[in-house]
Amino acid sequence: MKVAMLTSGGDSPGLNAVIRGAVLNGTIRYGAEFVGFRFGWQGLLDEDMVPLERHDVRGLSKQGGTILHTSRTNPVDASNGGAERIQAMFDRNGIDALIAIGGEGTLTAAHRLSESGLNIVGVPKTIDNDLDATDYSFGFDTAVEIATEAIDRLRTTAESHQRCMVVEVMGRHVGWIALHAGLASGAHAILIPEFPQSLEQICDWVHQAKRRGRAPVVVVAEGFTMENMQAAHSHKGLDTFNRPRLGGIADVLAPMIEDNTGIETRSTIIGHIQRGGVPSAFDRVLSTRLGMAAADAVMAKHWGQMVAVKGTDMTTAPISLATANLKRVPLQRYDESRLLFG
Amino acid sequence: MKVAMLTSGGDSPGLNAVIRGAVLNGTIRYGAEFVGFRFGWQGLLDEDMVPLERHDVRGLSKQGGTILHTSRTNPVDASNGGAERIQAMFDRNGIDALIAIGGEGTLTAAHRLSESGLNIVGVPKTIDNDLDATDYSFGFDTAVEIATEAIDRLRTTAESHQRCMVVEVMGRHVGWIALHAGLASGAHAILIPEFPQSLEQICDWVHQAKRRGRAPVVVVAEGFTMENMQAAHSHKGLDTFNRPRLGGIADVLAPMIEDNTGIETRSTIIGHIQRGGVPSAFDRVLSTRLGMAAADAVMAKHWGQMVAVKGTDMTTAPISLATANLKRVPLQRYDESRLLFG
Amino acid sequence: MKVAMLTSGGDSPGLNAVIRGAVLNGTIRYGAEFVGFRFGWQGLLDEDMVPLERHDVRGLSKQGGTILHTSRTNPVDASNGGAERIQAMFDRNGIDALIAIGGEGTLTAAHRLSESGLNIVGVPKTIDNDLDATDYSFGFDTAVEIATEAIDRLRTTAESHQRCMVVEVMGRHVGWIALHAGLASGAHAILIPEFPQSLEQICDWVHQAKRRGRAPVVVVAEGFTMENMQAAHSHKGLDTFNRPRLGGIADVLAPMIEDNTGIETRSTIIGHIQRGGVPSAFDRVLSTRLGMAAADAVMAKHWGQMVAVKGTDMTTAPISLATANLKRVPLQRYDESRLLFG
Amino acid sequence: MKVAMLTSGGDSPGLNAVIRGAVLNGTIRYGAEFVGFRFGWQGLLDEDMVPLERHDVRGLSKQGGTILHTSRTNPVDASNGGAERIQAMFDRNGIDALIAIGGEGTLTAAHRLSESGLNIVGVPKTIDNDLDATDYSFGFDTAVEIATEAIDRLRTTAESHQRCMVVEVMGRHVGWIALHAGLASGAHAILIPEFPQSLEQICDWVHQAKRRGRAPVVVVAEGFTMENMQAAHSHKGLDTFNRPRLGGIADVLAPMIEDNTGIETRSTIIGHIQRGGVPSAFDRVLSTRLGMAAADAVMAKHWGQMVAVKGTDMTTAPISLATANLKRVPLQRYDESRLLFG
Repeated sequence: MKVAMLTSGGDSPGLNAVIRGAVLNGTIRYGAEFVGFRFGWQGLLDEDMVPLERHDVRGLSKQGGTILHTSRTNPVDASNGGAERIQAMFDRNGIDALIAIGGEGTLTAAHRLSESGLNIVGVPKTIDNDLDATDYSFGFDTAVEIATEAIDRLRTTAESHQRCMVVEVMGRHVGWIALHAGLASGAHAILIPEFPQSLEQICDWVHQAKRRGRAPVVVVAEGFTMENMQAAHSHKGLDTFNRPRLGGIADVLAPMIEDNTGIETRSTIIGHIQRGGVPSAFDRVLSTRLGMAAADAVMAKHWGQMVAVKGTDMTTAPISLATANLKRVPLQRYDESRLLFG
Repeated sequence: MKVAMLTSGGDSPGLNAVIRGAVLNGTIRYGAEFVGFRFGWQGLLDEDMVPLERHDVRGLSKQGGTILHTSRTNPVDASNGGAERIQAMFDRNGIDALIAIGGEGTLTAAHRLSESGLNIVGVPKTIDNDLDATDYSFGFDTAVEIATEAIDRLRTTAESHQRCMVVEVMGRHVGWIALHAGLASGAHAILIPEFPQSLEQICDWVHQAKRRGRAPVVVVAEGFTMENMQAAHSHKGLDTFNRPRLGGIADVLAPMIEDNTGIETRSTIIGHIQRGGVPSAFDRVLSTRLGMAAADAVMAKHWGQMVAVKGTDMTTAPISLATANLKRVPLQRYDESRLLFG
Repeated sequence: MKVAMLTSGGDSPGLNAVIRGAVLNGTIRYGAEFVGFRFGWQGLLDEDMVPLERHDVRGLSKQGGTILHTSRTNPVDASNGGAERIQAMFDRNGIDALIAIGGEGTLTAAHRLSESGLNIVGVPKTIDNDLDATDYSFGFDTAVEIATEAIDRLRTTAESHQRCMVVEVMGRHVGWIALHAGLASGAHAILIPEFPQSLEQICDWVHQAKRRGRAPVVVVAEGFTMENMQAAHSHKGLDTFNRPRLGGIADVLAPMIEDNTGIETRSTIIGHIQRGGVPSAFDRVLSTRLGMAAADAVMAKHWGQMVAVKGTDMTTAPISLATANLKRVPLQRYDESRLLFG
Repeated sequence: MKVAMLTSGGDSPGLNAVIRGAVLNGTIRYGAEFVGFRFGWQGLLDEDMVPLERHDVRGLSKQGGTILHTSRTNPVDASNGGAERIQAMFDRNGIDALIAIGGEGTLTAAHRLSESGLNIVGVPKTIDNDLDATDYSFGFDTAVEIATEAIDRLRTTAESHQRCMVVEVMGRHVGWIALHAGLASGAHAILIPEFPQSLEQICDWVHQAKRRGRAPVVVVAEGFTMENMQAAHSHKGLDTFNRPRLGGIADVLAPMIEDNTGIETRSTIIGHIQRGGVPSAFDRVLSTRLGMAAADAVMAKHWGQMVAVKGTDMTTAPISLATANLKRVPLQRYDESRLLFG
């Protein structure tokens, strides 16, 4: 059996460990052969293939990035011309199945191609942890750890200067990283896309922390939007937006908080460092197991399924379930975190 | 309502976050009052109590150790004279319930005292992750992370010298830390108490790694014992045990491996650093949530229950279930890890 | 003898260790008494003083921030009305000497006040390492370590996507952090304020790295300016500057590099995390020793001097020497680093 | 010009960065050719050589270990038969000079071979920082950082249990690692080979810390010996030495302290993790510069010299000076540290 793999979309710590887990399990237990498409769907389009033998995946459990490289090439483009074209290419190269490691776009394409008869198994990849049907996705734990360490550092500066600090973490559509890093670092406010807040509420949280003698720390997901954003803007006038150094929502929020509370406020965007580098031990174990489970799923011909973790067990789920809904932070979890904002 | 807490047994990163989570949730949501017994059951014996108010738990989510201190005082001694004596002391001090944070001994005592009518809720604490009824216990993730980072470091030295390195991690009765740290660091053999191995098998794994050009890394849990240990000894004679610097099983194994394989072999015991210091973000979140859940369980009068995590949810389970059996590494997980030993 | 201390200006890891070193050495060896002004020169203006006894400085060697807090209050304002006013306040409070921990502004004021007869000793504080007369200033090593770890992480993402990454580190007037973090992380270009470069040169370095198969990493100090910046702009037209998310020089450079090389380019600003949190062991030792040396200098009545490190020795130097010139990266060091840009 | 390199003796973080620095500087600036002997002097004996081109040293600045591997093969054996034999081998292979990276043994041999007419330049390698004529040796900063982080962790456990903790760090003949890690972590006693102490003095330091409410932390270098060790032993009888788990001086000291102070005491040996893995940024910069300086020294024909750092400058010194005396911790530095033992 000959199995192809590809990694698609943004970097996520653990990608290499997934590749290693699949190749070692597939070759040693099942005697399968592996190849990798380079640069995600682009490599599938271009038939840009490399062999993946046992010695190619040595030492990969702890290595950040992906040896197969990745791209944001749209899988829809790749499947352009339909499943037939891809199947023909697979036949030409003797490929029996594809393990597609990627986010929502990749999994949606994988689902569609699978329905058209291609032998595909998915591995969910989202640093934001927003894919349903798996408790955690790899890379998320590393991102939370890095964000938490950064907030720990920012906090001492905030306290030395008795400033408020607004810290932006990743999370375009969901607030899992902000929720966990905020809880872990003892933030005084956590702002996430799922639950818009008014400027008044935010400033109230800041005031409360200040009154208890703390330097307020606000953790905000990049996708957060304020309730009545329009109103908030007009309240302060356009001037708020004429300030320099606007890079993200944290940069928008900081001057608003300063203007409304009178507390000196700075912003920091943690940025790309959340998604690169050596994975945490948790993510290394999770991705290794997901990779091994993907090889198992291929051998069991679980086409159209993706591997997932439920509790401490590896499992599989229809890709369609995973992509049907974004996994949002539920109200109960957010309310729980609000209790700690003090 | 007045709630007492105590922390008992060995240090585990996240103890302070549990205390903070319980106190914040209990005081803010339920208006309860909290006190802490110092030095575990010893403090309960001595009525050595301190108030735990909101400001006492500030900044604790990331702080290692336990502000209540701990001891290995036997809870059986503490409950000596029976539940009546403790109940009388509770009455004298207006204490309505106890949150006991501890391992098997503490939870067993808590169960018994609860059956005698005391209002007790348990929080499982075991760095070894060996308590049933919870997916993970706090401190385990931090221990695995520290062990993994240490093995990463040891590995470069092993490779520079082309030596075999035997690394001992914690795990007296179960091998979870060894399994996860071994997987995360790409060990060539993982030796755990659940599955004794012969010296021949161990040396075979070492040889295989060496043949593939690697410096073999053997991760061993402190509680591992060799199959036919006696035979192994007599094979080499007493001399093996006359070597200096025997501190743990790693120190016993290393010269045996060297003698049998002819490969220079060194041992390292990672030791206490696995259980102290700043908790990982994962453990901070887990312990904060367990602490909050403990306060919820007290308010719901779930006496005799302990809080636990199942998947991503907080839950409760009868303490008796958690202590009935040690949570051992199942054969399937160990077999899975053996595939990667290459 | 009664000694006052203050910390002024931006946070720098090691401030607390300086305070601890001075207080322990001063109280134990010399029997002196210590007080601290809170919030830098502002506290001196307001006579906002706290006692600094032995137990107040416990455990401070590893703690980030400053227990005395800091502010950017201008020391010139503080000395407003002249040295007489301050001397009168010192007399009123029985203060015999001041240890002023701060950057160029603080040291310049300290020099002037010292010339007017006040008993002042300085401790140089600059995360940028730009003060002359000392080999290293505390906080710099920590900043370089944090920046280097961040670049290590960013690099794997750059390589996965085969992108160019522009990373901005601190350094308003000098490029020491960029030079050291760039060397440590193997950057393909290091851009510092001391040596403006043309866009052509920068793009040439990027191209060279790309040609050798690397994902180019450009490390830029916040104070870097391009040679012929004007020309560079007009070359691309205003459009370059209409892009969103402009936060620093890295955000300006990234699109220019992308436009000129055709290589996808991203920017990251590491920001405030470089100056907060737990100091590196190097900085803890350096600041402890500087603090102890400051107490020695006070007892030796070395007024107008600041403490410094030369090689492995503590020494003192006239403050005027330290502030006469910015300590810039010399051409020879920059040329040396250019050799490694490949 | 063709230059050979070898790395000899124990692993030290930064070895690869030295190799990279020398190769890049030598090939790019001087157009030299490089080869490496594998496994130290053993490779020179065996003519086990590999080419070292520019692409062979890519990404090495942050990689632990040594790509040339190392061994403890005695350089005296290697030069057996005299300089003539080696010179003949050099001639046979067209080798013009040797850069020998190693400790006292290697440098002593290098000096002797150099006096016999071989073209040799040395690079000092000692994790213990015990070579004279250089302010710091690479690897030392990383070792201190790792030891300090470990002590930080051990401290929280000591405090939770109110125990005394004895921590053993590297340092066979000198106490630099113990001194710096002890200062950085705020140890209550630092015990180093240079200054034997009596058991009474050690226990007195432990008692003093305990009286001030701290959990005493004793940092001891592996080469420390007690004053009147014999007397101390007989005082307690042989029983002290019949205890299990004796691995190092920390294991000997801990029960003695416990017996004499009545304070529960545990020991930990940090061990090999101090010398492996990713180098600190400081060590990456230092080793890169030393490597570059070694290539400069070869080109300048500074035979019999070793490269060194003095303050912030690279320099060279006769190897004979560096090996004439061990660089010991001077009394003044030790006395300074004793002031902080509280």
